[in-house]
Amino acid sequence: MDHPSVIRPAAHASYQQDKMGKTTLFESPRLLVGLNAFEPGQEHALHAHAGMDKVYQVIEGEGVFLLEGRELPMRAGDLLVAPEGVPHGVRNIGAERLLVLAILAPGPR
Amino acid sequence: MDHPSVIRPAAHASYQQDKMGKTTLFESPRLLVGLNAFEPGQEHALHAHAGMDKVYQVIEGEGVFLLEGRELPMRAGDLLVAPEGVPHGVRNIGAERLLVLAILAPGPR
Repeated sequence: MDHPSVIRPAAHASYQQDKMGKTTLFESPRLLVGLNAFEPGQEHALHAHAGMDKVYQVIEGEGVFLLEGRELPMRAGDLLVAPEGVPHGVRNIGAERLLVLAILAPGPR
Repeated sequence: MDHPSVIRPAAHASYQQDKMGKTTLFESPRLLVGLNAFEPGQEHALHAHAGMDKVYQVIEGEGVFLLEGRELPMRAGDLLVAPEGVPHGVRNIGAERLLVLAILAPGPR
């Protein structure tokens, strides 16, 4: 993908039947911009990134953000920041597909 | 603002009559997550960040991304990545307010 260019995130979603689908839109030592695509019922279990901040933004669909000991309902447009070391995840509890923008800084080494 | 929590970006927009309004949603040494709010006609002129990648995502409204020698129309949902050193900007050419999520990595020192 060439940058800078105008990206419609949903056009790059990769849904998979067996697990969450992932797409990378941009990657550098500083930043990873990707998409997490969830069929109904799929989830990305609670996990944490040492030394990396994560930003989620819901592109389409609805579900819950998974945090330690709680779940937060989310819908298109919602944003959540999981600072480094804070466990987080996503579950699609809706009947439709769920697409989430996932940004990590710094990028994976 | 506490993190992690669910954020509706538009609820945090700060529009100003004299120039683009800015809001910081999250800041760390790794990442800045902010909002740029443009009244009709306002712009953030072409500029570049040495050693920092920038991600824009349009929350509401329409306008153009400013790049060297060209302008790219954008509307709600569109995303653009300006890798480090690449000049970029935003202009609200619409009749409504324009709100853009602006993410920088690493965060400003």
